[in-house]
Amino acid sequence: VRRVSSSGLSRDYDVLVGRGLLAGAGAEIERRLGGRQAVVCCDENVAPLYLEEVRRSLTDAGYSVSHVVIPAGEAQKDLARAEEMYGVFYDRGVRRTDVVVALGGGVVGDLVGFVAATYQRGVRFVQLPTTLLAQVDAGIGGKVAVDFRSGKNYVGTFYQPRLVVCDLDTLVTLPKAELHGGSAEVAKYALLAGGDLWSWADALAGGGLTAAGIADHLVAACVSYKLAVVAADEREETGRRALLNLGHTIGHAIEAATSFRRFSHGEAVALGLHAALWLSQRLCGLSAVEEQAGHDLLDGLGLPRRLDGLTAEQVVSLTGRDKKAGDDGVGYVLLEAVGAPRAGVRVPHALELEVVEWLLAR
Amino acid sequence: VRRVSSSGLSRDYDVLVGRGLLAGAGAEIERRLGGRQAVVCCDENVAPLYLEEVRRSLTDAGYSVSHVVIPAGEAQKDLARAEEMYGVFYDRGVRRTDVVVALGGGVVGDLVGFVAATYQRGVRFVQLPTTLLAQVDAGIGGKVAVDFRSGKNYVGTFYQPRLVVCDLDTLVTLPKAELHGGSAEVAKYALLAGGDLWSWADALAGGGLTAAGIADHLVAACVSYKLAVVAADEREETGRRALLNLGHTIGHAIEAATSFRRFSHGEAVALGLHAALWLSQRLCGLSAVEEQAGHDLLDGLGLPRRLDGLTAEQVVSLTGRDKKAGDDGVGYVLLEAVGAPRAGVRVPHALELEVVEWLLAR
Repeated sequence: VRRVSSSGLSRDYDVLVGRGLLAGAGAEIERRLGGRQAVVCCDENVAPLYLEEVRRSLTDAGYSVSHVVIPAGEAQKDLARAEEMYGVFYDRGVRRTDVVVALGGGVVGDLVGFVAATYQRGVRFVQLPTTLLAQVDAGIGGKVAVDFRSGKNYVGTFYQPRLVVCDLDTLVTLPKAELHGGSAEVAKYALLAGGDLWSWADALAGGGLTAAGIADHLVAACVSYKLAVVAADEREETGRRALLNLGHTIGHAIEAATSFRRFSHGEAVALGLHAALWLSQRLCGLSAVEEQAGHDLLDGLGLPRRLDGLTAEQVVSLTGRDKKAGDDGVGYVLLEAVGAPRAGVRVPHALELEVVEWLLAR
Repeated sequence: VRRVSSSGLSRDYDVLVGRGLLAGAGAEIERRLGGRQAVVCCDENVAPLYLEEVRRSLTDAGYSVSHVVIPAGEAQKDLARAEEMYGVFYDRGVRRTDVVVALGGGVVGDLVGFVAATYQRGVRFVQLPTTLLAQVDAGIGGKVAVDFRSGKNYVGTFYQPRLVVCDLDTLVTLPKAELHGGSAEVAKYALLAGGDLWSWADALAGGGLTAAGIADHLVAACVSYKLAVVAADEREETGRRALLNLGHTIGHAIEAATSFRRFSHGEAVALGLHAALWLSQRLCGLSAVEEQAGHDLLDGLGLPRRLDGLTAEQVVSLTGRDKKAGDDGVGYVLLEAVGAPRAGVRVPHALELEVVEWLLAR
């Protein structure tokens, strides 16, 4: 087991990365958090796979255990579902000192985290991410939210989990598309951090992306990179955390332009990363060689290469609504080199259109 | 104008206390926060009194101003109303760097604060409290929430305002019952802090409670006391913030037992303070003389003296559900002396019943 500990957050915590960890999750939770009651929340895809194992592990650790199973999909991440979960917590007499466990991917983690953050102003919260995306990104760092109308994550807060347990064995049951989605975030970290992370991601792409090929040191390195950035700007106030949005400005716009249905988040981010690489070479001095290496990494991971069925205007019109947009227009995260990101880069409207045209023509 | 500045919070801010401040509020906000758009939120009682003045002051300071008026009353503080306000913010394109202004009492401040805290994970938020309760208590310290079923403030978070402006002139239009409600919290601070605060509260009670009699130094002292306690335990984790719950354990139970309809929050707190005084003399060594002085202060402020129409069981059965209840039963805040509170005091069930019987028989 690799343990990555955060440092400098409002409340620090451990992220455990390894194989076969779910069976011991209850004991790890109890040792750190105590509490009497545990409520495990997951979706209907994850329930038949891992719910019983997690329940048993919590029961063995001494908790009174109950669970909530919700339908699968991003559409569940809304206020109506949050309200339903408040009702469940209320009926079960959940208290602040009890433990709420999110078992699943980013949707479940975001939704359950938001409910845990706001129920009685904060119940103890644990993430057991079962997707690559959630293990390297969504499940750590404390961003929790639900969607509102077409605003993704428009209602939320910052609330750190007390513990995150990433069991890599759960990735084996992940649909291929989900694995691809997560690999886009891995590619993002590789571009941001360079060094070992780049080499390991490159090796993953070279071996053909498989669950078994995802090494614990790769996941732990992504987690470690993210936690360091988050600690420098926990509530997204200084702009430092914005580094993590590499690829996300165009990515979010593509998601919104396709009503969050056509692409998974990770797939849209992959397209956004292609765009960021293209823009970086033109605006920030990224070398053509590194730009191409970035495109190759994304292609090697089997991620979407191009966009179709949309106009550039449709996509670009949605970049401004992104909630990270400051008053002074859209600030992009781009790369001066692999491992050397720069935040808040102004991209002229004409160039935004041009890069999306390039994605459409690629 | 008296300026009380917080110190040691996750984000520090000023509380301005004085008369005739609303007209200059826009300039004070603009100087500290900037931003382009301001949304003023108030209820239908406050709108005809102060909305235009606040709008004009924000417009003069350069903001693009809009407003939301909601019906009056605690029943508005729910998730449905919060969702409606998210919709308003969405339609108006509110961004994190814009300014949301809560103009009114505790209900508006709690509701609007919760919406501001969670919309896009946090929009800049300013409190312009127009009730005594909100000026000395609800409007400062960062607790924001809505009610859920019979759980008062069961869905919320901690989110500090960027500025609070307490215009004492607004208290002149306050219904007498509201003024009384706020005076219960003033009495609470007098009991907690003793010293000057006690003397000033005692003088207020002696002069018959009037809006004109409420001195800026009294309000500023309450604010200052509260901010110091909050800074020591911003997210209610160490128990230190629990000091502010003096009188609230029984008070909340009385509110819940009467479905939040019969007593205002402050009136219920006054009854809870009577109970806390009685218990303090029996459990914590509060002298009989100080106990009596406390009862006299509350009576002098014209607050409810006794309870009727309920059984002691009905009230006591609801003290345990209070979300501040730890795993080890109900911890009360009591007084060893005026100015010397102690938190986490265990009160045996039989004594809880006895003190409510005393309130019923007083």
